[in-house]
Amino acid sequence: MRKAERPVGMIAMSRVFAPAVLPDDLMSRLGSCIDLVGTEAVESFADPGTLHRLETVEVLVTGWSCPPLTAQMLDASPRLRVVVHAAGSIKAHVGPEVFARGIAVSSAADANAEPVVDFTLAVITLAGKRAFGLALEYAAGRFASFGQRAGNDGRVVGVVGASRIGRRLIVRLVAAGFRVLVTDPYLDSVQAGRLGAELVDLDELCRRSDVLTLHAPQLPQTRHMVDGRRLKLLPDGAIVVNTARGSLVDTDALTRECATGRIDAYLDVTEPEPLPVGHLLFDLPNVWITPHLAGVQGSEIRRLGVFAVGEVERFIAGEPLLGAVHVDQLDALA
Amino acid sequence: MRKAERPVGMIAMSRVFAPAVLPDDLMSRLGSCIDLVGTEAVESFADPGTLHRLETVEVLVTGWSCPPLTAQMLDASPRLRVVVHAAGSIKAHVGPEVFARGIAVSSAADANAEPVVDFTLAVITLAGKRAFGLALEYAAGRFASFGQRAGNDGRVVGVVGASRIGRRLIVRLVAAGFRVLVTDPYLDSVQAGRLGAELVDLDELCRRSDVLTLHAPQLPQTRHMVDGRRLKLLPDGAIVVNTARGSLVDTDALTRECATGRIDAYLDVTEPEPLPVGHLLFDLPNVWITPHLAGVQGSEIRRLGVFAVGEVERFIAGEPLLGAVHVDQLDALA
Repeated sequence: MRKAERPVGMIAMSRVFAPAVLPDDLMSRLGSCIDLVGTEAVESFADPGTLHRLETVEVLVTGWSCPPLTAQMLDASPRLRVVVHAAGSIKAHVGPEVFARGIAVSSAADANAEPVVDFTLAVITLAGKRAFGLALEYAAGRFASFGQRAGNDGRVVGVVGASRIGRRLIVRLVAAGFRVLVTDPYLDSVQAGRLGAELVDLDELCRRSDVLTLHAPQLPQTRHMVDGRRLKLLPDGAIVVNTARGSLVDTDALTRECATGRIDAYLDVTEPEPLPVGHLLFDLPNVWITPHLAGVQGSEIRRLGVFAVGEVERFIAGEPLLGAVHVDQLDALA
Repeated sequence: MRKAERPVGMIAMSRVFAPAVLPDDLMSRLGSCIDLVGTEAVESFADPGTLHRLETVEVLVTGWSCPPLTAQMLDASPRLRVVVHAAGSIKAHVGPEVFARGIAVSSAADANAEPVVDFTLAVITLAGKRAFGLALEYAAGRFASFGQRAGNDGRVVGVVGASRIGRRLIVRLVAAGFRVLVTDPYLDSVQAGRLGAELVDLDELCRRSDVLTLHAPQLPQTRHMVDGRRLKLLPDGAIVVNTARGSLVDTDALTRECATGRIDAYLDVTEPEPLPVGHLLFDLPNVWITPHLAGVQGSEIRRLGVFAVGEVERFIAGEPLLGAVHVDQLDALA
């Protein structure tokens, strides 16, 4: 393709992460299908130079910390045809006005899903063996008698949210021999059955689950969906896993319930986040808290760039976008 | 089948575990194909009553803590035709003299393999994200910047031993996107290639592996196969995982290497075991030690009984044993 024929493109994301998302080989692929207005990622649309350069931009590749696509920015971008987001959630920078202008939107959320599923399944596997608590007891001198401990066979896992992550996790859990319950307002029992899970409402799911794992989007109506009342529905010894968003769980209620030792919790996300130093949850032997790392990290970040560059190539070739986001999904997206 | 036609059987294992290995439904299945000399498991063959009862026994179902099948015991068991072990290793109670008498031997080691694979894969997944160390840092007030951390993509896992566990793990690791090296004296490069792994010697495996995971049998010649010299071959930041047997690793050398912070270790087994309270390994932030729980635990113990009862049924039906152990395997078995 001659340079003159290539659409003009811009990259907008944190410069800290840009080299991990789009290392040299991916930048080279990108540069061979679009004419980049600059090799360095843009971190703000506000300055006059950037606003001027937007005039010719047809393809915008966004990523973590991309500034919002405001009306001012969109007015300055009359030729913009597609926003390809090389990360998961578009909610921080893409609003209805982008869709209203007929601009196509794509997200690499699929590329982020598999690492979250791997992480969650690993946590459920180890938690079901009480590995974390037994490791602490071992260090304190108690080597529990061989064999007389919890195991994963027959365990019921309740999956909250049949999202792109929830669905993948259900399939993996079923393959691993777990019994799986699922709750999701957009899923019917036939679809749940095809995944190998039983559809129930959230209260019943709490009552019947040995492990409760959260994969719902962060929305006003999902805030504290796991509150004190629902935590009390969980059976003794139940395990709460949250690799989604901290707001789904009432942290104070969870802290109270875990402090009694009745349930365990494995939290990759919390509300607030970061959790303040000295929070009681950090001190409980039945709680394990990781700093929001279930999604792509380090070498995995490249997955986002691979997906985004493929998406740009598909757009230019006139093929369907694999990560297309539609305006009516905005309210239900994570 | 009329009672008179059923072979006489005996159960020999720890009475602590017998109800978990052979709960009522499995005892009922067993009782419908063999005529048990007693419903309670035998814990010793030495007393005259048991020796007398052995006279008619054709099928012996053994399990954890089964006493050795000595010459005296075997002399007292002239009709014994098969030993079905409802656990992994037969080495503690079955020797060459059992095979010399033409008695068939079967082990449920296969039933124990899948939980070990699940556990090991979970540990490798979380360790590759530095989840354990980052959890400790988070509790100490350091919430590492989002995204700038290790990831599992591109990671090389070196599998030592293409055992029943090692082989299953290789297949799962390859499916999860890891690059896999393997070393095993009984494997050739074509067989390794079919599993999706590259066959190398142990020194090269140590030099090239981000994660070293042990699945070799406990033998005199495998003792301390991972010694100080080989630990030093590992790249900086490498992870050692041992869910096999403690004797494979020189604990003192590992302790020294981990104490420098150069490598991390995840140990479900150690030498000695239990590791004494206050051992330096318990205090290192880059070491996680669990009390030998990767294999079947709690609800998973039933797997052993399911396998053993199926094996007894196959033996009586004249079908091949799925867990048959041959005398020439004795030296290489875990």
